[in-house]
Amino acid sequence: MSSMFDEAEQDPSLADDESARIEERLRIQLLNEQYRHLNQKDRALLIIVAGIDGAGKGDTVNLLHEWLDPRHVRTIAFGAPTEEEKAFPLSRRLWLGLPPKGSVGIMFGAAYTPLLQEAAEKKPDPDKLEALISATRKFEDTLVANDVQIIKLWFHMSRDAQRKRTEKLRANPSTAWQVGKDYEKIFKNFDRVRHSGQRVIESTDTPHAPWIIIPSADDNMRSIRTAQTILDAFKRKSIKVPLPHNPGAPLKRNRPTRRLDQLDFEASIEKETYERELSQWQNKLAIAVRDKSFRKKSLVLVFEGQDAAGKGGTIRRVTHALDARQYSTIPIAAPRPFEMDRPYLWRFWRNVPRCGRIAIFDRSWYGRVLVERVEGYATRQAWQRAYHEINEFEKQLVDHGALVMKFWLAITPEEQLRRFKDREKSPYKSFKITPEDWRNRRQWSAYAQAAEEMFAKTDTEHAPWHILSANDKKHARLEVLQRITKALEQA
Amino acid sequence: MSSMFDEAEQDPSLADDESARIEERLRIQLLNEQYRHLNQKDRALLIIVAGIDGAGKGDTVNLLHEWLDPRHVRTIAFGAPTEEEKAFPLSRRLWLGLPPKGSVGIMFGAAYTPLLQEAAEKKPDPDKLEALISATRKFEDTLVANDVQIIKLWFHMSRDAQRKRTEKLRANPSTAWQVGKDYEKIFKNFDRVRHSGQRVIESTDTPHAPWIIIPSADDNMRSIRTAQTILDAFKRKSIKVPLPHNPGAPLKRNRPTRRLDQLDFEASIEKETYERELSQWQNKLAIAVRDKSFRKKSLVLVFEGQDAAGKGGTIRRVTHALDARQYSTIPIAAPRPFEMDRPYLWRFWRNVPRCGRIAIFDRSWYGRVLVERVEGYATRQAWQRAYHEINEFEKQLVDHGALVMKFWLAITPEEQLRRFKDREKSPYKSFKITPEDWRNRRQWSAYAQAAEEMFAKTDTEHAPWHILSANDKKHARLEVLQRITKALEQA
Repeated sequence: MSSMFDEAEQDPSLADDESARIEERLRIQLLNEQYRHLNQKDRALLIIVAGIDGAGKGDTVNLLHEWLDPRHVRTIAFGAPTEEEKAFPLSRRLWLGLPPKGSVGIMFGAAYTPLLQEAAEKKPDPDKLEALISATRKFEDTLVANDVQIIKLWFHMSRDAQRKRTEKLRANPSTAWQVGKDYEKIFKNFDRVRHSGQRVIESTDTPHAPWIIIPSADDNMRSIRTAQTILDAFKRKSIKVPLPHNPGAPLKRNRPTRRLDQLDFEASIEKETYERELSQWQNKLAIAVRDKSFRKKSLVLVFEGQDAAGKGGTIRRVTHALDARQYSTIPIAAPRPFEMDRPYLWRFWRNVPRCGRIAIFDRSWYGRVLVERVEGYATRQAWQRAYHEINEFEKQLVDHGALVMKFWLAITPEEQLRRFKDREKSPYKSFKITPEDWRNRRQWSAYAQAAEEMFAKTDTEHAPWHILSANDKKHARLEVLQRITKALEQA
Repeated sequence: MSSMFDEAEQDPSLADDESARIEERLRIQLLNEQYRHLNQKDRALLIIVAGIDGAGKGDTVNLLHEWLDPRHVRTIAFGAPTEEEKAFPLSRRLWLGLPPKGSVGIMFGAAYTPLLQEAAEKKPDPDKLEALISATRKFEDTLVANDVQIIKLWFHMSRDAQRKRTEKLRANPSTAWQVGKDYEKIFKNFDRVRHSGQRVIESTDTPHAPWIIIPSADDNMRSIRTAQTILDAFKRKSIKVPLPHNPGAPLKRNRPTRRLDQLDFEASIEKETYERELSQWQNKLAIAVRDKSFRKKSLVLVFEGQDAAGKGGTIRRVTHALDARQYSTIPIAAPRPFEMDRPYLWRFWRNVPRCGRIAIFDRSWYGRVLVERVEGYATRQAWQRAYHEINEFEKQLVDHGALVMKFWLAITPEEQLRRFKDREKSPYKSFKITPEDWRNRRQWSAYAQAAEEMFAKTDTEHAPWHILSANDKKHARLEVLQRITKALEQA
C-alpha cells in the first residue's frame, strides 16, 4: 500500500560531490531569497519541525543557522509547560514566540506535541483528537491570514535506517545524549510514531500550511531537501487562506439587530442611592476576587464605547475595589511598529491575565472591527476575518478559566456633544478632546453600524457583550460593577 | 527630638474649598507638564510608592490615573515573587517593569520590600542591611544615569490618625479588605514600621532619587501634596548623578595592559586532533549541562571579537552539544526604538536565562564600550559609566547562580583581510561582508584600544574574559568548548 512516507522510507541518499554542487547553488539562492524576504517584510516565515526520533532535526536547525543569515533566524524549542506557562492558555507561548515580519522562526514540536501524543495513544480519544486537530487548523489559518507563512517539516526514514542512525548517535560521545538511555524504545515505537505522524499530517496538511516530508536517512539528502523546501517557501508569491465559513463560537440568539437604539437612555440614578450602592457593590466585588476559587480563574474586562462615554471613570470605580497587585489596566492605542510586525492579536496575547489576576482593557482588540474598519486602517478582508479570530481568542481564554466580559458604554450624540463642549471648557479635561474626536463624531453612524455588526457577530455565549446606556454616568458605573460582581459570584 | 516625620505626624489637613482651589490649578499644570514631558521624551518618570499601612496609597494611585492622562501612566504592583520570578535574579522584574521615556511608571513597594522588611526585624543583620542599601542605591544610580527620573513617596501620619483611618476603612465595606483581619497588628507595628522607614529613607535618600514624605491623615492634604510633588518632578530640568568612584566588583589582578598583543596568533591545531577532541569536549559539555546540579544554575556566554573572527561558527560548535530546548542564541544588533526608550541594559535583562538554561549572546552589552564608543553612538559619559553598570549587571547574574563567561575571539589584521576577501569571493558568504565592515577595519586601532580598556575594567573575578587567538578557527573553537566545559565541571 502506498503511503506518504514511501519515498522517505526508501532512504534515498545523495553523493557528496553532487550534494556539494547543489549546496553551492542553493546557499546563494537561499540567502538572496532571505534578503528579499527581509527587505519586503510583508510576511514572517514559521518553520515547524517534527518527525521521528534520531532523524537529525537538531543538526538541521544548526545547518539553517549556518546557511541563512542567522541574525534574522530565531529558534524556539518548547519543553513541557512550566507552572508559569500553565497559568495562561497554552497557546499563549506559541503566540508570543511568533517571528516578526521579515524574519524566520523555527519552532520545535510544541504546537504539535499534544496532538501527536494523543494520536500515538493505543486508543486515541476521537473527540479529543478532533478538538486538537480543529484547534491546530484554526491556529494556523489565523497565522497565515495574518502574514505568517507556515511550513511544517516531518523528518522521516525507514526503521532500519533509524536503527543505524541511532547506533551511530550512541557511538559518538557528542551525540549520545540525543538518544537517551532507553534507546530501544525508539525502535519499539517506530510504528506507533509513524502511524501517529501519518494521522496528524493527513488531518493538518493544508495548501496554506503544508507538511513536507524530508527523507533523513542520509545527511546530504536531508540538508539539501530542507534547504530546497525553505527556498520554495521564500519564493512563494502569496498564500491565500479561505475565510472561515463558521463563526467558530455559538452566538447568543434572539437579540435585536439594532441594539443601540433599544437602550433606555433615560436610565439614571439618584446621587445618594448611587453612593450607597456603589460602595456596596465595590465591597462585594472586593470579596469575590479575594475568594479562593478565583485563584484558578481570571477576569478579562473589555471597555468600549463612543468617545467621552466615560470608560476611564467607570474603570476607576472598578479598580477602587481591587488590590493594585491583582490587576493591570491596559490602555489600547494605535499599534507600534514592532506590534504591526506580528499578527493582530499578538499584542493582546501579551497582556492576557494569568490565573488569579484581572486585566482591564481600555479599548481592546475590537479596534479592528471599529476604528480600523471605519477609518480604513484594516483591509475589508482583515476586519471581516477578525470576528472569527476574536471569538476564537476569547474562547481560548474562557476555556482556560477566564471570565470575559465586554462592556459597551453607549451615549447619545447629544450627550456626547455636551461632554465634548464641557471638556473643551475645562482646562484639565481639554486634553481628552482632540480634533480626532470631532472627526470621529462626524462618522457617528458608520461607528454605530460597525458596533451593531460587532455585537451581532461577537456576542457569544462564552463572552457576552453588555451594552449599557452611559448617558447617566452613575447608572453605567453601577451597572458595570453589579454585572461583574454577579458574574463572578455565579462563576 | 525632631524627626523627618514631624510634619506628617502633626496630621496637617486642608479645607475642602482651599483644596478645590489648589486642585484646579494643579491639575492644569500637571497635565501641561505631563505633555511637555511626553513630547520631549528625554526621560521616564518612576514613582516609587511606600509608607505606613492604611495611608491611602491605593487611592492616591487611582487619583493619579484621574489627574494625569492615564494612557501614559502604568502602575505596577509586585506581590511576593512567583516561582517563575525566582528563576531569575529578583531585580529582573523591576527592570522589565521600567516605564519607557515620556511616560510615568508607578511602582508599589517591590524595590524596597526586602530592605524595609530587614530594617523592621527586631535585630536587623547589619551586613544584610548594608548590602540591600548598597544594591538599592546602585540600582537607582544606574536608572537615573539612564534617564529614568525617580521620586519616592512615603505616605505617613501619626499613630492616632492611623487608628482613625483604619477604623474608617474597616467600617466602609468597599475598603475593609485593605485593612485585613488582624488589623490590630497595624497599630502594634506602627513604631517598628516607622523606625524601619526612617532607617531606609535616611540611607537611600539621594539628591537624584529623593524621598518625599506625604502627610496622609487628611485626603485633601495627601492628594494635593502628591500632585505638587509630581509636578515638581516634571519641572526639574536635569538630574545629575555622580559617576561611581568604585568599579563595583573586584578585578582580576596582574594582567598585562595590552593583552591582545600578548596572544600567540600562531596557535593552531591539526584537523584530525581537532575533530577527535571537538567531539570529546562536546560530549563532556552535553553531560555537564544535563547534570542535575545545573538545574539551579544557568550559563551566560558572551561572544565578542573583531569582524570575521568566527563567532558564529564557534557558537554553532557549542550549540551542537545542546538540546534546542535548553538554549537561546541572541544576536545583538543596533537597538530598536522601543529599546532606546529604556535604560541601556533593559534589552539584555529581557534575555537573561532562567535557572537550568543557557543564553548565548552573539555580541552583547559590551557594544556600549566598543562600537558605541568608537563610532560615537554613546556619549563619553554613557560608555564610561557602562563599565561599572556592566560589572554590576553580571554580578547580579552570578549571585543568582549564573556562570558568566565572556569570550573575545581575536584575529590579526592580516587574517581579517584574508577572510574579508574570502567572503567577498564566496557567493554565500558575501552577505557577511558589508561596507561597514571595511569602515570598522579602518578603525582597527581604536577598536583595539577600546577592547583593551574593556578587558582592564571588566575582567572581574566573577565574570572573567577569555581572550583567545582565533587566527586558527579550530584552535579557538576547541579552547572555547574546553573552557566552558571545565568551568561547568568546576562550578
